[in-house]
Amino acid sequence: MQISPSEDKIPVVDSPSSPQGYGEGLYFSDGKRKVDYVLVFHQRRHSSLRSPASASVSHDRLSVVSNGNFPPSVDPDALAAAGRGGVMPGGEAACVGEVFMELGYAGGSESLEPADHEMRLMRQEFEANLQDAGLEIERDKEIKAHGPSFTRLHAPWPVLCREAEFLKIRVPTKTSYELKEESGFGSSMSTMWRKINQPFQPKVPRQDQGRTRYLSHSFSREKLHLYNITSKETFFDNTTRGRIVYEILRRTVCVRTCQTIGISTLIAKGVYDAAFPLHDGDFRIIGEVEERNERQILHEEWARYSAFYKYQPIDLVRKYFGEKIGLYFAWLGVYTQLLIPASIVGIIVFGYGVATVDTNIPSLEMCDDSLNFTMCPLCDGACDFWHLSTACGTARASHLFDNPATVFFAIFMSLWAVLFLEHWKRRQISLSFNWGLTGTEDDEEHPRPKYETILLQKRQRKQKTKKKKKKSEQQKPEDGTVRGKDRWRQKLLSAMAAGIPNPIDKLTWKDRLPGYFINVSSILFMFALTFSVVFSVIIYRITISALMAMSPDPAIKSNVRVTVSATAVIINLVVILILDEIYGSVAVWLTELEIPKTDTNFEERLILKAFLLKFMNAYAPIFYVAFFKGRFAGRPGNYTYVFNNFRMEECAPGGCLIELCIQLSIIMLGKQLIQNNIFEIGIPKLKKLVRAIKDKGSAVKEKEQGKPPQQWNLDYALAAFDGLTPEYMEMIIQFGFVSLFVASFPLAPLFALLNNIIEIRLDARKFVAELRRPVAIRAKDIGIWYNILSGMGKFSVIINAFVISFTSDFIPRLVYQYMYSPNGTMHGFIDHTLSYFNVSNFKPGTMPTNSNHKDISFCRYKDYREPPWSLDAYQFSKQYWCVLAARLAFVILFQNLVMFLSLVVAWVIPDVPKNIVEQLKREKKLLVDVFLQEEKEKFQLIQSLFSKDNTLKAGGNLFEQSPFFSAPGRSSTLPSGQTQASGGDGGGAPRARCRAASFSQFTRRSPSSPVNENGSSRHTAV
Amino acid sequence: MQISPSEDKIPVVDSPSSPQGYGEGLYFSDGKRKVDYVLVFHQRRHSSLRSPASASVSHDRLSVVSNGNFPPSVDPDALAAAGRGGVMPGGEAACVGEVFMELGYAGGSESLEPADHEMRLMRQEFEANLQDAGLEIERDKEIKAHGPSFTRLHAPWPVLCREAEFLKIRVPTKTSYELKEESGFGSSMSTMWRKINQPFQPKVPRQDQGRTRYLSHSFSREKLHLYNITSKETFFDNTTRGRIVYEILRRTVCVRTCQTIGISTLIAKGVYDAAFPLHDGDFRIIGEVEERNERQILHEEWARYSAFYKYQPIDLVRKYFGEKIGLYFAWLGVYTQLLIPASIVGIIVFGYGVATVDTNIPSLEMCDDSLNFTMCPLCDGACDFWHLSTACGTARASHLFDNPATVFFAIFMSLWAVLFLEHWKRRQISLSFNWGLTGTEDDEEHPRPKYETILLQKRQRKQKTKKKKKKSEQQKPEDGTVRGKDRWRQKLLSAMAAGIPNPIDKLTWKDRLPGYFINVSSILFMFALTFSVVFSVIIYRITISALMAMSPDPAIKSNVRVTVSATAVIINLVVILILDEIYGSVAVWLTELEIPKTDTNFEERLILKAFLLKFMNAYAPIFYVAFFKGRFAGRPGNYTYVFNNFRMEECAPGGCLIELCIQLSIIMLGKQLIQNNIFEIGIPKLKKLVRAIKDKGSAVKEKEQGKPPQQWNLDYALAAFDGLTPEYMEMIIQFGFVSLFVASFPLAPLFALLNNIIEIRLDARKFVAELRRPVAIRAKDIGIWYNILSGMGKFSVIINAFVISFTSDFIPRLVYQYMYSPNGTMHGFIDHTLSYFNVSNFKPGTMPTNSNHKDISFCRYKDYREPPWSLDAYQFSKQYWCVLAARLAFVILFQNLVMFLSLVVAWVIPDVPKNIVEQLKREKKLLVDVFLQEEKEKFQLIQSLFSKDNTLKAGGNLFEQSPFFSAPGRSSTLPSGQTQASGGDGGGAPRARCRAASFSQFTRRSPSSPVNENGSSRHTAV
Repeated sequence: MQISPSEDKIPVVDSPSSPQGYGEGLYFSDGKRKVDYVLVFHQRRHSSLRSPASASVSHDRLSVVSNGNFPPSVDPDALAAAGRGGVMPGGEAACVGEVFMELGYAGGSESLEPADHEMRLMRQEFEANLQDAGLEIERDKEIKAHGPSFTRLHAPWPVLCREAEFLKIRVPTKTSYELKEESGFGSSMSTMWRKINQPFQPKVPRQDQGRTRYLSHSFSREKLHLYNITSKETFFDNTTRGRIVYEILRRTVCVRTCQTIGISTLIAKGVYDAAFPLHDGDFRIIGEVEERNERQILHEEWARYSAFYKYQPIDLVRKYFGEKIGLYFAWLGVYTQLLIPASIVGIIVFGYGVATVDTNIPSLEMCDDSLNFTMCPLCDGACDFWHLSTACGTARASHLFDNPATVFFAIFMSLWAVLFLEHWKRRQISLSFNWGLTGTEDDEEHPRPKYETILLQKRQRKQKTKKKKKKSEQQKPEDGTVRGKDRWRQKLLSAMAAGIPNPIDKLTWKDRLPGYFINVSSILFMFALTFSVVFSVIIYRITISALMAMSPDPAIKSNVRVTVSATAVIINLVVILILDEIYGSVAVWLTELEIPKTDTNFEERLILKAFLLKFMNAYAPIFYVAFFKGRFAGRPGNYTYVFNNFRMEECAPGGCLIELCIQLSIIMLGKQLIQNNIFEIGIPKLKKLVRAIKDKGSAVKEKEQGKPPQQWNLDYALAAFDGLTPEYMEMIIQFGFVSLFVASFPLAPLFALLNNIIEIRLDARKFVAELRRPVAIRAKDIGIWYNILSGMGKFSVIINAFVISFTSDFIPRLVYQYMYSPNGTMHGFIDHTLSYFNVSNFKPGTMPTNSNHKDISFCRYKDYREPPWSLDAYQFSKQYWCVLAARLAFVILFQNLVMFLSLVVAWVIPDVPKNIVEQLKREKKLLVDVFLQEEKEKFQLIQSLFSKDNTLKAGGNLFEQSPFFSAPGRSSTLPSGQTQASGGDGGGAPRARCRAASFSQFTRRSPSSPVNENGSSRHTAV
Repeated sequence: MQISPSEDKIPVVDSPSSPQGYGEGLYFSDGKRKVDYVLVFHQRRHSSLRSPASASVSHDRLSVVSNGNFPPSVDPDALAAAGRGGVMPGGEAACVGEVFMELGYAGGSESLEPADHEMRLMRQEFEANLQDAGLEIERDKEIKAHGPSFTRLHAPWPVLCREAEFLKIRVPTKTSYELKEESGFGSSMSTMWRKINQPFQPKVPRQDQGRTRYLSHSFSREKLHLYNITSKETFFDNTTRGRIVYEILRRTVCVRTCQTIGISTLIAKGVYDAAFPLHDGDFRIIGEVEERNERQILHEEWARYSAFYKYQPIDLVRKYFGEKIGLYFAWLGVYTQLLIPASIVGIIVFGYGVATVDTNIPSLEMCDDSLNFTMCPLCDGACDFWHLSTACGTARASHLFDNPATVFFAIFMSLWAVLFLEHWKRRQISLSFNWGLTGTEDDEEHPRPKYETILLQKRQRKQKTKKKKKKSEQQKPEDGTVRGKDRWRQKLLSAMAAGIPNPIDKLTWKDRLPGYFINVSSILFMFALTFSVVFSVIIYRITISALMAMSPDPAIKSNVRVTVSATAVIINLVVILILDEIYGSVAVWLTELEIPKTDTNFEERLILKAFLLKFMNAYAPIFYVAFFKGRFAGRPGNYTYVFNNFRMEECAPGGCLIELCIQLSIIMLGKQLIQNNIFEIGIPKLKKLVRAIKDKGSAVKEKEQGKPPQQWNLDYALAAFDGLTPEYMEMIIQFGFVSLFVASFPLAPLFALLNNIIEIRLDARKFVAELRRPVAIRAKDIGIWYNILSGMGKFSVIINAFVISFTSDFIPRLVYQYMYSPNGTMHGFIDHTLSYFNVSNFKPGTMPTNSNHKDISFCRYKDYREPPWSLDAYQFSKQYWCVLAARLAFVILFQNLVMFLSLVVAWVIPDVPKNIVEQLKREKKLLVDVFLQEEKEKFQLIQSLFSKDNTLKAGGNLFEQSPFFSAPGRSSTLPSGQTQASGGDGGGAPRARCRAASFSQFTRRSPSSPVNENGSSRHTAV
């Protein structure tokens, strides 16, 4: 890239003095060119009171508007202006040194801080390079003492065309086809369905014209005539324009002043503060407007709670925010929609529990005073024997969740998870078809700034060691090294930008070893932390209940279980919430240490780590309650003790399932409520407030100048968009609550549903009103989240199998009914589950000290053990082994059955919906037809040309060799609209124009009439 | 398509009288044009003794060689010649009627059978259409009384170009890049590895030039200059040419004479007998040759047993036979290669069994006479009590297969299966990358002939019912219907060919309902058949052993078990082999009934069905032995009886595993040996012999004429290729033996390995020497087979878990050792597994009648039951439940552990090999660079042109609108080689020429020098 001297006629246009007239700051000062992107940097000069007319300001008055000429060249005006105010920052500015050398600047009148100064140079080089790439730039002419300065970028039509071709952006062609009309019964059904659905549809302008579908095709400048271009201003929508500009920003190199590629590195270095595309205008509708902009439509029809019952306008969301965010909301929508049947079945299952609680024999038996089971004391010494009928309440509550319907529900929910995933796969494919993403490849990604920095450092180290070996040859080793290094860096960087592979072109595992090491150890540490927290809470429960039981106050004693459980769960919840936030940041830190190469890479690793940590955190206490609580308590006379004093806790007499249920529901509800209210509403509000107070000064000044804030000012005041990971993470953890332990809490889907209805609108509001517009990112799927979801789905099968067989009493009941019951009913089940214990076998000191039941010799406890009078007393009885075998058999049966059913479901539901397959086939055929037709006409045209010209002996030879070049004059016969379209924009220089008028264009005419016309025009034109 | 009168100058060339001079019949008579495809039909005239000079023969002398002109039109010469000999076949020839009407023929001199005659017309129309599509045709001029007639097809360069572009065939470009050289340790390792590998490499000309890789890109006529075209004859290899011609054959319509699309329908209708591309010549090397053809190389280096230790030349196989067959052999190679470590581990495991058999306490205890276990009799009445030590042999044999190493081996083999699949996935991706298949889409498929016929019938039915409603309006209803129907059919067919959707364009489930019904019922019937066969064999065993036991001859008595087992297994094997063949044909028949739309569809359904049936067939007896045998035998005093008389069979005293092992090994080995020898070698030889005898007459005549057989004669004598399904199926069933029950037979991988080493060469030989050359089919993967393999892999986990825990004695031993053994050793295990039975409890008549052990009161039997002196005598004991629980727990543990490990393995091994990812990235970058460079040069050229012409005011306006057309004279400055290349072939008509000289070609020159040249040439040319 050399500076071409012919480029010195760039008009310097004054910036707008009153831009209100031009569409509220969405356009350049000429009111025509859209602002596609805004770069912001913060003026950090502290001498804010200097006079605006002083000499030093002259170089700030830069307001260069390139005319978008095509062949890249550095704008010398800009560089000169930049240099004029420059101070040679001495030896330190290794990074910017060279440009000074080249331009011959050695001093200046002003004393800018070097960093600021360097940054300005970087900005200037970067922006000059952007102009080289064809972008047009506008800056404010006015003086900003401090506060944000905005550089507005506009991509003219030729640039859009070029980039759209590179990015393979699919655009609609003129060719359309009709979707098949359903007939007969199906048709009337679908009409009815549409009618029923009408009130749930958002009022959004329809993008598709009924059943007509336009064929879309990757944009190509050689096929411009195929596309339906009504206006070059609107052919690419704002989102696409933003994406295109971002693509240029991403790959623009800054070689001279600082070896970087792309805007993100510059932002990371602090050269710019922010870079974002503009919103479409205000989201509030002020007064009467004839046409709402897209942001307003989204705000009205989507981002408000009152729209909760409506479908989401996903196509519009995708159009405005891009595919990645569109997919998130589509996914959330599908998930929420499918939660509806799950909730209904959950409610029915719960209703079954409620309905049968009064006829359920085991709980009736437990409540029956006449059966008079005297239970062994719950703690040593202080506690007395007790009657089982006092636990009647928990027994009844337990039945609500622990009944045969739960087994059905667990199977149902496992299949539901598979169905959900399959349904989503189909929806994803449908969406990616409708959004024209089928067949597109993933974008090539640039390395992350961090990665590049480390890579450069590594190269420098290598270079240095090489240099050291050659040191003897050098005269001024130090100077030479610095310069040599820079030269070398520069070379490297341009090589990198040009995609030339390098000897050291990647980081190996050796570079990452420390990162991995810290990673593994930190994750292990955090696992340990989580487990120790769980264990601490257990200890808390044991000690507190022991202490309370020993207290002489009967009021305290009676409330032991309730108090302890409640406080423990709340402690658990608080700890989970705190650790959740900590783990989130730790995961980011750890992922940075791994130095992933690309952003996708970074995201995947971050997600995996964050998921692992947050999952452990949220589920560890629940796992404990489900599978470990009460299993290590021992038996009367041989209890397990921790710290030599405290007996391990047991489950409530109603079974462990009810405790699991309580634990699960409190953690789930608490997490959702607190996270929604505090983390998603409260903290952003607080942040906004803080920033508002901070920026008050500049805002006041802005106001003083009497100008309404421009769109870029408004957008800059919003928070930056920082990825969808937290949103997805919240939902995935919730999916865990819905699927993993659903056997113990059938109402989980209902609560998830209620939460999600709010969550959708909350997130929507955030995106529409509270965040800067994110750059549209093309994405075909939700990436690693799908794998996590499907992994959880699989895991949930085995977890539910274990919950049903080990945590609930389902299997023991079955075994009793079919193997031990004398008459095939459940009568006597409670008696069967309780073993006998001879009171005289209590260890010294563990006997109840002041008991009301002095006369009994046997107490009962819940376990299958041999009675004291048996040969091997207190050993596990045959029933125990029998029940255990049944439990294990159930796990095998359940797991394999559900896995098999899941496979069948996944196999039966085709991944690609049938109508999409058909449409794809049809589109492919149509496309081939279009191109074939084109080729045929082209050929016929040439043929007739040839037969005409064959008589001209002179031209004959020429034509035979290359018939295509026989039509030089034909361009004058082109339809004028098309020619205007390709030649009508801007500066008049033909270079930057979209080179659309290739030969493929002139061949799309009918072959007969234009031939003569053409033949003659050829002769006349020459 | 109308007949264009300008096409009547087709030269009629005499066919070769002595074609030996021209490359052994691989070329047309001119010795230049390759024969790319051969269509064969059999002359079925019976008046074979007519004089060859008679008048009727004149129309047989057709020998049309089209010059490959481009725009399609019917060759009237051919049609006229066809009509000349035609007889109007009256009312019956509904199919060909119309063409007669049009051409005005009503009679002829000869009495051909109508069917023959119709077929000739069809052939003529079809071949005329082929000529329209640009193919060149040669037929024998000579008279063939009967016997095969050959139509040779040649695709000229323009047709190849056109089709290659449509088929998106990837071809190498001139751009190349170097593969990264490994450095340091890795490099020396790989050099060493190469050296070690050297003797195992086949001696095949290297296709890749060391580390240089040529970028490949889909063929496009507009980018001809990018490709490395040295000769237009060889640029597309024979395989590709065959594929291209097949593609044309597949989609060529036959509208007038018979409504069909494609050659396969014509073959199905008997119009042609066969259609195949030619082999590259003889596979035998006769005398000295300087260069072996590819078929010879394959035969020498691949298709012989002596090459068994070598790698397969997969790239050459793919080049010769196409991707689909290449993938099969690659898969077989990978499978065989991975069987090597599996065999080695299997041998080690078996070796461990052999080594420990003398120190194994349970088998020592079983052989120990002093322990003196008196066992209960094995049959009622006739059998006596017996000592356990007599079963010492089986106990020792049992230990060989039933030892702790087996558990390890089962886990190993489950992971091996996962590894195999992952490895194959990688290999598949690397192959498809090396073969240039990445990014290609699947070919659009035409419906199968059967489907089309049924569809036409359906439409006709619909049409008829519509017609009937309108009947009153018609004057001659019958004639009208026939003609109307034909018109309508014709319209439909051309619409189908043009891809226009039709109201009735597919068969619905209603049309297939009877097919499905027959399907389901047949499959159920065959399942029942399989099970009844298994059951019959059981009955056979029970009855024969009972009868033999009752026989008074002690010689018979002592051989009961051996005789019965041997005969039963042999019966089983024979039945399996017979049913296997039957089920194969039934599956084809059933799939035909389903009327699948495309061949892929057909293949998938067929494979699924055939697999299901053959799997059931092969494994039902094995499943019986593994999981059911001996479990329903009952206990002494309460045996289970079938047919009131015969006791259910029990396992051998050494355990069921040894029986499973015997069953498995005999079926596996027998199946492989017999199938390899009889079905794969014997039957084809037999078929060949039969055909040879049949064709003897014609062959003799051929010989008499003194002509050596042409290549097409030789190829026609070979068997047709009929799909890879049987080959894959054999291997998949074998994979089942290797994976499903591997816990019981660790030597299975070894036997599979030995079989496969032979199998590869056997199949190779078949493809090279015994089959006609198959059409190359593009395939990226092995399709549904992968799913079947992975399904079997998953299934094998659970099967092996059950085999280990239920069939083997592994779990009872563990339980004994850790729960019941008094000293932690295995001593006393046998005693522990045997329950007591009080002899007095025998039911009347079941007591041994003449026993040598009159004095005993208790006999032992193998089960965990309470002793007779217990309260609940003969009930399952606590040990039983305990062991059962342990078995089930082991299943859960094993299944989930292996599943988890499999997931980890699959997750750790990336699907796409790293170097492929890198190469892909690099190629993408290079490609973009190439195109960018091209565009830049193009642009610079135009720019300089423009700046030149800008001074010319007259031309300025013109150029501004369409700068591309400013280079009419440039074609004269093209490098002459290129221009020659695109204009040098054949007839001289420019229409059929590859339109390569598009403008993209002239821009690839360097921008500086040709500009002036060009500018001036433009001026001079005009």
